[in-house]
Amino acid sequence: MIRFNCDYSEGAHPFILKKLEQTNLEQLAGYGQDPYCLQAEQLIKTLCHAPQAGVHFISGGTQTNLTVLAALLRPYQAVIAPNSGHINVHETGAIEMTGHRILTVPHQNGKITAAQVAEVCRAHWQDDNPEFAPQPKVVYISFPTEFGTLYSREELRDLRRVCDENNLYLFMDGARLGYGLAAQNNDVTWQDMAVCCDAFYIGGTKLGALLGEAVVLVNPKLQKDFRYLMKQRGAILAKGRLLGIQFLTLLENGLYEQLGAHANKLALQIRAACKEAGLSFLYDSPTNQQFPILPNDLLKELEENYVFSHISVLPNDKTAIRICTSWATAQADVEQFIADLKRLTEK
Amino acid sequence: MIRFNCDYSEGAHPFILKKLEQTNLEQLAGYGQDPYCLQAEQLIKTLCHAPQAGVHFISGGTQTNLTVLAALLRPYQAVIAPNSGHINVHETGAIEMTGHRILTVPHQNGKITAAQVAEVCRAHWQDDNPEFAPQPKVVYISFPTEFGTLYSREELRDLRRVCDENNLYLFMDGARLGYGLAAQNNDVTWQDMAVCCDAFYIGGTKLGALLGEAVVLVNPKLQKDFRYLMKQRGAILAKGRLLGIQFLTLLENGLYEQLGAHANKLALQIRAACKEAGLSFLYDSPTNQQFPILPNDLLKELEENYVFSHISVLPNDKTAIRICTSWATAQADVEQFIADLKRLTEK
Amino acid sequence: MIRFNCDYSEGAHPFILKKLEQTNLEQLAGYGQDPYCLQAEQLIKTLCHAPQAGVHFISGGTQTNLTVLAALLRPYQAVIAPNSGHINVHETGAIEMTGHRILTVPHQNGKITAAQVAEVCRAHWQDDNPEFAPQPKVVYISFPTEFGTLYSREELRDLRRVCDENNLYLFMDGARLGYGLAAQNNDVTWQDMAVCCDAFYIGGTKLGALLGEAVVLVNPKLQKDFRYLMKQRGAILAKGRLLGIQFLTLLENGLYEQLGAHANKLALQIRAACKEAGLSFLYDSPTNQQFPILPNDLLKELEENYVFSHISVLPNDKTAIRICTSWATAQADVEQFIADLKRLTEK
Amino acid sequence: MIRFNCDYSEGAHPFILKKLEQTNLEQLAGYGQDPYCLQAEQLIKTLCHAPQAGVHFISGGTQTNLTVLAALLRPYQAVIAPNSGHINVHETGAIEMTGHRILTVPHQNGKITAAQVAEVCRAHWQDDNPEFAPQPKVVYISFPTEFGTLYSREELRDLRRVCDENNLYLFMDGARLGYGLAAQNNDVTWQDMAVCCDAFYIGGTKLGALLGEAVVLVNPKLQKDFRYLMKQRGAILAKGRLLGIQFLTLLENGLYEQLGAHANKLALQIRAACKEAGLSFLYDSPTNQQFPILPNDLLKELEENYVFSHISVLPNDKTAIRICTSWATAQADVEQFIADLKRLTEK
Repeated sequence: MIRFNCDYSEGAHPFILKKLEQTNLEQLAGYGQDPYCLQAEQLIKTLCHAPQAGVHFISGGTQTNLTVLAALLRPYQAVIAPNSGHINVHETGAIEMTGHRILTVPHQNGKITAAQVAEVCRAHWQDDNPEFAPQPKVVYISFPTEFGTLYSREELRDLRRVCDENNLYLFMDGARLGYGLAAQNNDVTWQDMAVCCDAFYIGGTKLGALLGEAVVLVNPKLQKDFRYLMKQRGAILAKGRLLGIQFLTLLENGLYEQLGAHANKLALQIRAACKEAGLSFLYDSPTNQQFPILPNDLLKELEENYVFSHISVLPNDKTAIRICTSWATAQADVEQFIADLKRLTEK
Repeated sequence: MIRFNCDYSEGAHPFILKKLEQTNLEQLAGYGQDPYCLQAEQLIKTLCHAPQAGVHFISGGTQTNLTVLAALLRPYQAVIAPNSGHINVHETGAIEMTGHRILTVPHQNGKITAAQVAEVCRAHWQDDNPEFAPQPKVVYISFPTEFGTLYSREELRDLRRVCDENNLYLFMDGARLGYGLAAQNNDVTWQDMAVCCDAFYIGGTKLGALLGEAVVLVNPKLQKDFRYLMKQRGAILAKGRLLGIQFLTLLENGLYEQLGAHANKLALQIRAACKEAGLSFLYDSPTNQQFPILPNDLLKELEENYVFSHISVLPNDKTAIRICTSWATAQADVEQFIADLKRLTEK
Repeated sequence: MIRFNCDYSEGAHPFILKKLEQTNLEQLAGYGQDPYCLQAEQLIKTLCHAPQAGVHFISGGTQTNLTVLAALLRPYQAVIAPNSGHINVHETGAIEMTGHRILTVPHQNGKITAAQVAEVCRAHWQDDNPEFAPQPKVVYISFPTEFGTLYSREELRDLRRVCDENNLYLFMDGARLGYGLAAQNNDVTWQDMAVCCDAFYIGGTKLGALLGEAVVLVNPKLQKDFRYLMKQRGAILAKGRLLGIQFLTLLENGLYEQLGAHANKLALQIRAACKEAGLSFLYDSPTNQQFPILPNDLLKELEENYVFSHISVLPNDKTAIRICTSWATAQADVEQFIADLKRLTEK
Repeated sequence: MIRFNCDYSEGAHPFILKKLEQTNLEQLAGYGQDPYCLQAEQLIKTLCHAPQAGVHFISGGTQTNLTVLAALLRPYQAVIAPNSGHINVHETGAIEMTGHRILTVPHQNGKITAAQVAEVCRAHWQDDNPEFAPQPKVVYISFPTEFGTLYSREELRDLRRVCDENNLYLFMDGARLGYGLAAQNNDVTWQDMAVCCDAFYIGGTKLGALLGEAVVLVNPKLQKDFRYLMKQRGAILAKGRLLGIQFLTLLENGLYEQLGAHANKLALQIRAACKEAGLSFLYDSPTNQQFPILPNDLLKELEENYVFSHISVLPNDKTAIRICTSWATAQADVEQFIADLKRLTEK
């Protein structure tokens, strides 16, 4: 079976394993205060042109989201998010466990607009008793989104503007950031993110690391005491080196974007083949996640050799699936899939 | 100005004040363990034909909702509620503060159906990884609803059945219970509530008490250690007598239902007058809350003498408002309102 | 039986009941926005010479403590308190439920010193990794303490100073404030509290109200969005008038201090009688709570006619008890107790 | 500089890195559902003679403690722990953040006794209003303790008995379990732990893994929905294989105990040398952590070449330090330290 169901089926990029081996017996300070973490932090600040930023490494996305939101929100405040956002659909209510409501707005291709954010704020503040509802304070977006789509630089700036107008923070979940940065028509840069967001993170787990997300706290107000918040949630690893070494390896020679580009290239080959086979798509994604709609017969035949994620059951015996490529996807596997698809759809 | 904006504009029914005065200098045990609380508890169990129930008195609705839900839910569990439910729209995220997500479903006249509940459960459990989303465990409904409408006995039984089928608790917010019990076509009795619900409460604040809600924990599993949960949330009053005396007064000679009937009667007079004036309604309510839709001109004129709650701004220069009557509403005030309405709409 | 076990055995001072009756049918705005709440707020600011303060009314002490501490603390911060503090011994872990540790220090007659506070801070900040322990941020004290004792003005100022030096807030639980203000050698004034504390509250429940505490947020930083925090915890009463009217009645003609003085006077009569009978005391209290140590034989005989609180079982068949007087205690009851004590100890 | 300050200064045991490399490109299911996790789970159940147990892998100790305690406690319940316990001194109030109080009792060499547990329960339940204080429900102990000491099998059984008598759960933090199991006079076996504890965990981070703790839920009542609790706290790694592979490597051929034995052996060499040099100890530890008391002069000289943890400043210019060995400590480094110590103390 070839797994196309997610982008974390393999271990880590070989450069990472090699670096872990090379440094294995060095005696280093714990808790993220070793030289590798410090170098990775410095590198990220340089990439982002954000010398004032605070950078922290956390093992996974859910823990990152709940820790950053704990820093951003007072107890009665809420986070605005697309209903498709990871915090809303895939984290077992971690944000609510932390005490906060998610104010969901309907996504459009996984994205939300500045106008939607403005409307949530207007509705809140025009009420006679705004204090009877959670107060909107953060906008959460993902880049790329959960459907592989991308905000443009202009859309990001619009969100920044609406946040400024409404005294909101902008927080970007970059669990798959490298796929977005490497996408063909993407115009968002490292610096744009640092300019537009109060906080964002650089995903490692889904881009070639064993685990790990690098949080960038651009807004100095959020940096104070952040390590307390991390430690209290079990988010400071004793052997922090494990995260520092991985991010240093991924980021120091552009490896991160290269891995993203590799996966995107293969994903677009799959997309082209699906289009050629007459399939339509649930979302139009330029990145490593593709969402074709397959007749159930075809799906069943393909699933004899391939693993996909099922996204939604559709009318007329069709199913929307997710096909993921990653840094580890082999060109040969993609070619085999394309050949099989062709064979099965030309029957 | 005559206030029709809510059902808690006045103090308490005179019988309550009188009883408070008569008992004022009695030295009684604190924390809800005085004879009046015990008598009120006994009376409620008798009314409900539920000798096994546990009864507790709490000062307000939000505190009651968050305390009962703390008893009903483990940390990763969620409550299904209509999007119009009080816990969703008017409690500043109290339930999320307690750590739990509200799984909202679209209301129909303020109500939800057994089919909607079943669908939420189906969607949760059919997922490959149900543990990645909050687990539905409680159904929250209001009787009457926030829009004055009522579940029939059959609808309640359907909800009970779907709860049994899906291992859910049924919790009923009865902040305005007396208006529902006294409504003309209502077929739900005290006993029906005790049979169908795992827990519900009898609202005092909105039905003639200074403050207070009486929680009825029908399901014995929920009774254990409930006072710990109350105390931890500041929900055990030192002078618990204040609540026991009020509920005893309200419930011992049917006063509670009489007050509801009084308010309903006046509300229906207002409804009839509105209909006669050609106004339509946002919801069709048989109880003390009425939701007529007024042209903004008319509204403005009426608001020179009356206070209403604004519910929604509608197209074509119209506004939906809420008109509330209560145990304290005077027949004369209603007649004056009807006369004014008539005068203004016949111009 | 005559109850000396607490100061909340009766209802409310008659002036309060009378005022509730007089205003009962007035139609007023809800949620603490009626004229009585506003007048009470104004009066409190005037008493405290603190025009910038924010004043809010909450139904009970536990709810007040957990709401104010939610305003004062970020998630990883902790409150320093004497181990005898109400939040530590009598609130079912309400503060921990809110997410915060109580850093207890050993009390001395119910009090803590500036030096103890300084030491907690020193120990925290000198650690190599202070972020591995909760960060001290608030000092919680009670006035009078749970043992009836009082801080002097100088002690309060010392605590203020140590708070300033360590960037801490000072929060004073005044559940029995009136007894303290009225004590003979007390030198702390309303204004002193407003000068020394960031926040404190004026207890109603234990001083003649049916229920209620008036929170005074002196520090403007704490005032923002406090009503959100209240509402989210169910701490805004729909009929807020109930609290406003009570505090207005208690405070407007010095009634509050008079009630305190009455109770203190009777308590000191009891103290004198106990001393005369050769009894010693667990604590030396100048206010309405007295803590005599009784031989168990004597205790048993007295308990045929009187109710006390048991505080601790002591060696040599003795027990320390608490005897409380209140605004409602009758001179005759105290005289009878003194006579009985005399009779039993002279045998 | 040679680091003796902790047992997590290096990366992972080479066998682990090798196994990660060998399996790196295998495509596996995520979220702990891969074959390596399943094999490791099976192996642990076999080791413990506990086929009914549930086994889960979590990245670090704090996250493990807060997740397990969330499974064990209802909102108003508390955990009894020695004041020296990791949850009390080194986790930034993670347990309180989760809503629960830690009921600390004074440790004796890092341990608590059954009698101390019984007394906490007695004091709670004999109160007139037990519901006014958090209810004790779990006993938390560490094996080895934070001071390197060990419970005997008999002491564990006593704790089990007192837990049974008081309806408590017993939870054992085994962050350094391997050092305890390998200690010379230890009589506690894998099976003993499974028989005595409701839940415990096997520490990887401090015993040769890059990261990871293996939770063993012996009591079936605790197993239900545990993955929900994990996911909600960000404790399910996407690449769960990373943890499964490590525990499989550590546990399958007794490597885990061998690593513990290696570290203990070197620690006892250091202990013997310290004793020979006339130093006394804060605690008498048979495992990899040693707590000698050094004159400050000597300490300063040694710290030119070695890193230690400072534990407490003592009178007479002395300091208690912690010296840790680990799986990675080299015999040569220990010998050099012993030689230096000898040289400096013989001067």
